[in-house]
Amino acid sequence: MNERLYSKIPLSQTIVHLCDIKGIHHIVISPGSRNAPLTIGFSEHPGLQCYSIVDERCAAFFALGLAQQLQQPVALVCTSGSALLNYYPAIAEAYYSDIPLVVLSADRPIERIDIGDGQTIRQRNVFENHILYSANLYSELIAAEQITDKRILQKQKEAQKHNEREINLALNTSIEQQGPVHINVPFYEPLYDKIKASTVNPQVLPIENHTYSLQDFAQDDIIEQWNNAEKKLILIGTNTPDSIDSKYFDLLAKDPSVLVLTETTSNIYHHTHIDSIDQLITSLNPEEFLDLQPDILVTIGGMVVSKRIKAFLRNFSPGTHWHIDVKKAFDTYFCLDYHVKMNPEAFLSEVLSLTKMVTSKYKEQWLAVRDLRREQHKKYLLDIPFSDLRVFEVLISNMPKIQQLQLSNSSTIRYAQLFTLSPGLQVFCNRGTSGIDGSTSTAIGAAIASELPTTLITGDLSFFYDSNALWNDYLPNSFRIIVINNAGGGIFRILPGKSDDYNFNTYFETTHSLSADHLCKMYGIEYHQAKSLSDTNKVLNSFYKSSDQPKLLEVFTPRLVNDEVLIDYFKHLV
Amino acid sequence: MNERLYSKIPLSQTIVHLCDIKGIHHIVISPGSRNAPLTIGFSEHPGLQCYSIVDERCAAFFALGLAQQLQQPVALVCTSGSALLNYYPAIAEAYYSDIPLVVLSADRPIERIDIGDGQTIRQRNVFENHILYSANLYSELIAAEQITDKRILQKQKEAQKHNEREINLALNTSIEQQGPVHINVPFYEPLYDKIKASTVNPQVLPIENHTYSLQDFAQDDIIEQWNNAEKKLILIGTNTPDSIDSKYFDLLAKDPSVLVLTETTSNIYHHTHIDSIDQLITSLNPEEFLDLQPDILVTIGGMVVSKRIKAFLRNFSPGTHWHIDVKKAFDTYFCLDYHVKMNPEAFLSEVLSLTKMVTSKYKEQWLAVRDLRREQHKKYLLDIPFSDLRVFEVLISNMPKIQQLQLSNSSTIRYAQLFTLSPGLQVFCNRGTSGIDGSTSTAIGAAIASELPTTLITGDLSFFYDSNALWNDYLPNSFRIIVINNAGGGIFRILPGKSDDYNFNTYFETTHSLSADHLCKMYGIEYHQAKSLSDTNKVLNSFYKSSDQPKLLEVFTPRLVNDEVLIDYFKHLV
Repeated sequence: MNERLYSKIPLSQTIVHLCDIKGIHHIVISPGSRNAPLTIGFSEHPGLQCYSIVDERCAAFFALGLAQQLQQPVALVCTSGSALLNYYPAIAEAYYSDIPLVVLSADRPIERIDIGDGQTIRQRNVFENHILYSANLYSELIAAEQITDKRILQKQKEAQKHNEREINLALNTSIEQQGPVHINVPFYEPLYDKIKASTVNPQVLPIENHTYSLQDFAQDDIIEQWNNAEKKLILIGTNTPDSIDSKYFDLLAKDPSVLVLTETTSNIYHHTHIDSIDQLITSLNPEEFLDLQPDILVTIGGMVVSKRIKAFLRNFSPGTHWHIDVKKAFDTYFCLDYHVKMNPEAFLSEVLSLTKMVTSKYKEQWLAVRDLRREQHKKYLLDIPFSDLRVFEVLISNMPKIQQLQLSNSSTIRYAQLFTLSPGLQVFCNRGTSGIDGSTSTAIGAAIASELPTTLITGDLSFFYDSNALWNDYLPNSFRIIVINNAGGGIFRILPGKSDDYNFNTYFETTHSLSADHLCKMYGIEYHQAKSLSDTNKVLNSFYKSSDQPKLLEVFTPRLVNDEVLIDYFKHLV
Repeated sequence: MNERLYSKIPLSQTIVHLCDIKGIHHIVISPGSRNAPLTIGFSEHPGLQCYSIVDERCAAFFALGLAQQLQQPVALVCTSGSALLNYYPAIAEAYYSDIPLVVLSADRPIERIDIGDGQTIRQRNVFENHILYSANLYSELIAAEQITDKRILQKQKEAQKHNEREINLALNTSIEQQGPVHINVPFYEPLYDKIKASTVNPQVLPIENHTYSLQDFAQDDIIEQWNNAEKKLILIGTNTPDSIDSKYFDLLAKDPSVLVLTETTSNIYHHTHIDSIDQLITSLNPEEFLDLQPDILVTIGGMVVSKRIKAFLRNFSPGTHWHIDVKKAFDTYFCLDYHVKMNPEAFLSEVLSLTKMVTSKYKEQWLAVRDLRREQHKKYLLDIPFSDLRVFEVLISNMPKIQQLQLSNSSTIRYAQLFTLSPGLQVFCNRGTSGIDGSTSTAIGAAIASELPTTLITGDLSFFYDSNALWNDYLPNSFRIIVINNAGGGIFRILPGKSDDYNFNTYFETTHSLSADHLCKMYGIEYHQAKSLSDTNKVLNSFYKSSDQPKLLEVFTPRLVNDEVLIDYFKHLV
């Protein structure tokens, strides 16, 4: 074991020290020269886990996956220039999914910007539209011990203080508000010098956490409305597993005026919930919508996948809408009255202790409809041909009951929402921006940070889009990928523009005949393919057994059948 | 042949019409639903050439390659959300390389931003730091024929006028200033409706072109200084082929006080030029640098690759520096006096007609040094082992004399700069940001738009980084790729940080054992490999012969030998 070294540059030491002390212990590094002081500082630190990923787009989604599971910031380190811009898709996803990321971009000193030097762009504030904090640091001109003029030494000390404060603020913001921040770090050459002892002792500004109670948010009005409402709808979007004690849902279950709708990404399971929103509401008529229209809408969690629930709640406006989240509230249904800045568990705890149950037929009525839908769902699936929908049923009923399930956008997550999942599944999908650009990288990062084995289900376009996700040394052997290959963007056949001419096939569906097998050979992944239901079942028999390399199953589904099966599905639910 | 249809949405018709009329005839489309009105409008237009590319990062570099060759804007069309952000690396490259691109991003209407809708981010002005113009358009609320209130109709007409003006300004800016612009286009649903006749007749604002002559730029001082200077250095960076008539270089050749240094990307060839700057100056001593230090530095073209010429000209400041470019001038050497906003050919024409030749030993002296270096270069290469440097020599001497040569960053372009190329080569490299992120996509776009057959030489990291470049239907059969696979980022072994421990290999060099053969199988490219000089020569014998699919040659070079061969090269030049 070699002794630990430090970058000779104090700014590098300061960043590494502050990241470490604030619990940022996972660092995803992309190669470069300008970032050498950071790469040296982080990789020499024995207490930090560093990862090397070349493609910065993948690196950022990989870090996002890690941070999604760790629920603390993961740092990204890249060199100057366009490298940084490749982080942007993942940063926007982190911004809207409330996932903490710390972007550390090496830069040239300010006087070297826009004078024709290589790998040099305008990095300051470059993520302006989607970042919680942008810190722009100063680089010391020359090493302190070489400075003889005391006035210059004093200025350099002040710059170090500025840097310390800015780094503290950026890191604290990422931790307190759970989102991405950007720290731009200019370095002068020489970049590679190392020393044996740190020369800095940076100030550590404390992380602040405000906790609110219901009293801070019109408690009386909330209690009064709750006690008087016969139709209370709780809608739960993207939500971290185990963040709300199930006892609160047991209590809610007893209240006949409360109906709980959960999305697949809510990670909340209860036999009295409606866990497939689209299954319930797709075939409702206006009269039924009026029956479902709530007096109170309480929303919990992040993004909601179902477009139909959004359309319904915009057309049949709830009497009031309260969003419960410590950080932010979107006015998704154009009737938001309260943003209760509490974590949902604390909110439920207080509300349930302060309110009474209300007599109503609301829950009973809609659970009855749910049960009917579930019957129809079962019946319909008995009879349908091999197709995306049928494959999803097989995949979901044949997966380990306890694992992490990562889903890609966009038809994958929508299909998954039609099924009741095992409560042992922890489900994730990049719904912040709902892009197809980084699902595989995210899943791999998440697989590393989770104690559960992880399966990714993905469509062909999103899989090929993020094929560089596989280009690293960190895929766990337990990692499983299932590619539903319908030879193009199957979602477009379900959207209104469907036709069968050249333009549709080329510019919307973007049909192709690619397969994942070559990528599997390239990256050392065990490859399986299936072109029928029996193929699929056969592979699944041993697919989740432990192995000495990751595995991928590619299921080829018939592109011209899938959309008809799905459209008919919704017709057969009533 | 079906009759042409139009998107029913006037905004889509307006954009398609104005692009067409301003000569924007190549459209790169990525799949999506929100952008359906644009996709329909462009793909239905029989006079436009549309391309379908799924990965927006590749799509943008592909468009960049097209525009690099066409020298007129290429349009990019994507859906809302993170799709747009994947364009950013190519946009920054276009910004610094002065390549015209028109980004058309579909968006949701403004009231749907930040309310939790899917694939929705803050698209307005998102490229702020690296864009020439950002146009933010308005969407009409409902179709005009459905509006009964005249006041609303009037407002909608005014919005249409605003849109027309903004689109005109954006397109004109891209054309006049040769760079990227962003037009953000919100659409309401329905998105897929088509009609048989256009319903708009948008105003067309004229494109303006100012032409300046030397009289506009301190002509007297320029002439006087020129006539008095015994050491005039002309340094030519990235430059479009055939943009300067060779007769001006013939004239300059006769003036003993003028020394011309050209970079590989200058696309200018003359027997009196010094075409390998690093070969010349790497081993100069301070006294020789003083001899080379010019009275006048005239720079032409874009980015300069050679770090050594920059370091020299910063340390040995020229008496004055004039940059000749219609658009911009970087103060690369911290002594810029004149930005002469003329095209270089016009400048040379005027200056050479107004000045006299000056007696001097400057040219003669340095051409003598050049010839010595060339001798040493030849001698050294006779004796060296199989390595990157040796492979470059073989590749360059065995390629067709007339073709387009695309080079990736970063060691590829640096190696190429050490050799004298055939004047029939047109050489390109993404030196705007010098990223490794999109060289293959750029080369493919450029190959399509060029009449010459195209070869890309690339390093392994940049090739794998941009592997999705191969995921489209447009690779010409004449396209050739040569991957110099030195199993990692060979450049890092030449930079000061070189060592041979785990951290260096992992986070700097990022060693790997990947090969390109699987990607070739996946995408239908004829694959060849070489692990020795004789292998390489053997493949090259038939590599450029016509074929019914593109070809790739992967040369595996010894990672631990390459850096030593190159370092020794510079030692052996004197």
